[in-house]
Amino acid sequence: MKNFEHGGNVYNAEGLAENWLDLSANINPLGLSEAVKSAIVNNIDSIIHYPDPEAKELKSAIAARYKINVDSIITLNGAAEFFYLFFNTFRPKRVLIIVPSFSEYERSAIAAGCEVKYFFTDAENNFNIDFDKLIKIVKAENIDCLVLASPNNPTGNIIDAKNILQILNIIKFTMVDESFIDFLGDDFSIRQLVKQHKNLIVVQSLTKFFAIPGLRLGFAVADESIINRLELGKDVWNVNYLAQKAGVAALNDKVYINKTHEWIFAEKKYIVERLKKFYNVKFFNPTVNFVLIQFATEEIASLILNAFKVQKILLRNCANFVGLDGRYIRMAIRSREENCRAIDLLEKLEKGSEYHKF
Amino acid sequence: MKNFEHGGNVYNAEGLAENWLDLSANINPLGLSEAVKSAIVNNIDSIIHYPDPEAKELKSAIAARYKINVDSIITLNGAAEFFYLFFNTFRPKRVLIIVPSFSEYERSAIAAGCEVKYFFTDAENNFNIDFDKLIKIVKAENIDCLVLASPNNPTGNIIDAKNILQILNIIKFTMVDESFIDFLGDDFSIRQLVKQHKNLIVVQSLTKFFAIPGLRLGFAVADESIINRLELGKDVWNVNYLAQKAGVAALNDKVYINKTHEWIFAEKKYIVERLKKFYNVKFFNPTVNFVLIQFATEEIASLILNAFKVQKILLRNCANFVGLDGRYIRMAIRSREENCRAIDLLEKLEKGSEYHKF
Repeated sequence: MKNFEHGGNVYNAEGLAENWLDLSANINPLGLSEAVKSAIVNNIDSIIHYPDPEAKELKSAIAARYKINVDSIITLNGAAEFFYLFFNTFRPKRVLIIVPSFSEYERSAIAAGCEVKYFFTDAENNFNIDFDKLIKIVKAENIDCLVLASPNNPTGNIIDAKNILQILNIIKFTMVDESFIDFLGDDFSIRQLVKQHKNLIVVQSLTKFFAIPGLRLGFAVADESIINRLELGKDVWNVNYLAQKAGVAALNDKVYINKTHEWIFAEKKYIVERLKKFYNVKFFNPTVNFVLIQFATEEIASLILNAFKVQKILLRNCANFVGLDGRYIRMAIRSREENCRAIDLLEKLEKGSEYHKF
Repeated sequence: MKNFEHGGNVYNAEGLAENWLDLSANINPLGLSEAVKSAIVNNIDSIIHYPDPEAKELKSAIAARYKINVDSIITLNGAAEFFYLFFNTFRPKRVLIIVPSFSEYERSAIAAGCEVKYFFTDAENNFNIDFDKLIKIVKAENIDCLVLASPNNPTGNIIDAKNILQILNIIKFTMVDESFIDFLGDDFSIRQLVKQHKNLIVVQSLTKFFAIPGLRLGFAVADESIINRLELGKDVWNVNYLAQKAGVAALNDKVYINKTHEWIFAEKKYIVERLKKFYNVKFFNPTVNFVLIQFATEEIASLILNAFKVQKILLRNCANFVGLDGRYIRMAIRSREENCRAIDLLEKLEKGSEYHKF
């Protein structure tokens, strides 16, 4: 697997995307809500117009749902766009990234010419961040930008506001990626801290929760002074017309949001109960819609990946995550039926002829 | 009008976008082709997947239509995305922009920290570029990036390949924006020069010709070494799923392409014939789907803009183009009926009570 390659690339899997169960991308299995689909269908004829350069309707919907001032919001062609925009605009010198985490942080920082350093968290400590150690390193190494994610992909770790507050005082920029926060609940978000702290930036994807990764949609919140500078660093039409309309429909779709919460709370519980029964599989507590699994050896993990591929199930090989290796696999949490299919297969592999290797 | 504000912003016009005749944006009045619309409708359910990070199908369609190697192509979330990507990736020190031209060149260069200089062309010389003078300035001022457009927006000027060839030898980067070239014909493109010249970058929008500005779609061609560096400067999902599918359908739609050519050749001729009959209106030869008109004074132009607004027609006030002023208005060329409506109104204003001012 190449560096910076991601899950969800069904285009490299053999055959058509539709024939695969994709557990390598973390997308809401409830799929497109009727409201979102209608918003797209009803607006197709309007794509002969440019998107609203100010994304007024979309920003209002984001502001209302997340209780944030519209002037503190920048809307994005997917959250991934943000990292490139941020690093290019502010060009921090030394960026410290908590790893293992989403590789676009590093890729975008390098593209902007930043020096990238890693702060490793490890499996033995359940990938928790040692904040005392982190603060020491930030000071000693003259770090001017820290990148964290909460819940973190692929570990699922969540960061407490009180820990973030310690960091904000000693560093120029702190960027927190909350792209999976909607699967957990707003109580866990540190987004409201931007109101008091001018050096905190919180990024969020809307494509995973609302199952629209193909449409691209995300946003970031920060102090208005930061948002204004970021707006100058991109063209004004970055969020396409259909994504703006779909986003408004999605954010107002309380039924879908509630259904998703019911589903994820039930399925996290189910997955944990099933995974507990394995002898030789270590897994990390799933806080959102994916679970990180650690096998005893790279050979076993590779065997699992291949056996799943034969059954047309894609898993996320975590070998290219800095701080992980080929023993780790990330599996998306999907519908009960799909989760069953995956865990049953894992069980079969454990009990089957390959058990001794497992 | 604010700096960097563009045409096509129907969101600031009163009432619904549908009620306005928008001559401020240069979009093909033939609208969405059936093939493009079908490609979108048939792929809505697939937006639960990420877009193809390599945009393979789309790049193949671009390569086939424009006779360019796939490895020389980067696909874009609209051509405007390119300028930010280019300047952030290569960070030229001194950028020379031929003006008047699309303001995003300047805005993006400034965002990336480049020093921006202008090379003025003027109405007296029909906005033609004096290449001898240009070459002298490039050398004297140590310019490392030149930005030109052909056909140029808003003047319509076209650049000869032989003139570009003179420039390529003396400057590090030359970027040519050919976003309107499809309205003119491929014979006028200098795109094929990238095969021999590693410092030439040619950008193209697909949204104007195929009437999909809301969907965002563009591409750039350059030597593979340049393309590879640019690919590292953006996330891999920048072109959304529907834009990729619509782009493939559009590029293969020979009937729509031919119909558009028939329309634009006929309407350019018609517009020129009508505009010639005005006493006090100077216009610049429309090479593509817009025409730049110069009025005697800013007051007259302002009067025209307002009178059109009353009739719910948006024109492009050119006051915020560097090198132009409030005397200039850009008008999109549309269907015969719409062109008639606009020119008739202009005629009425000339003949009417305000004639003395006109």
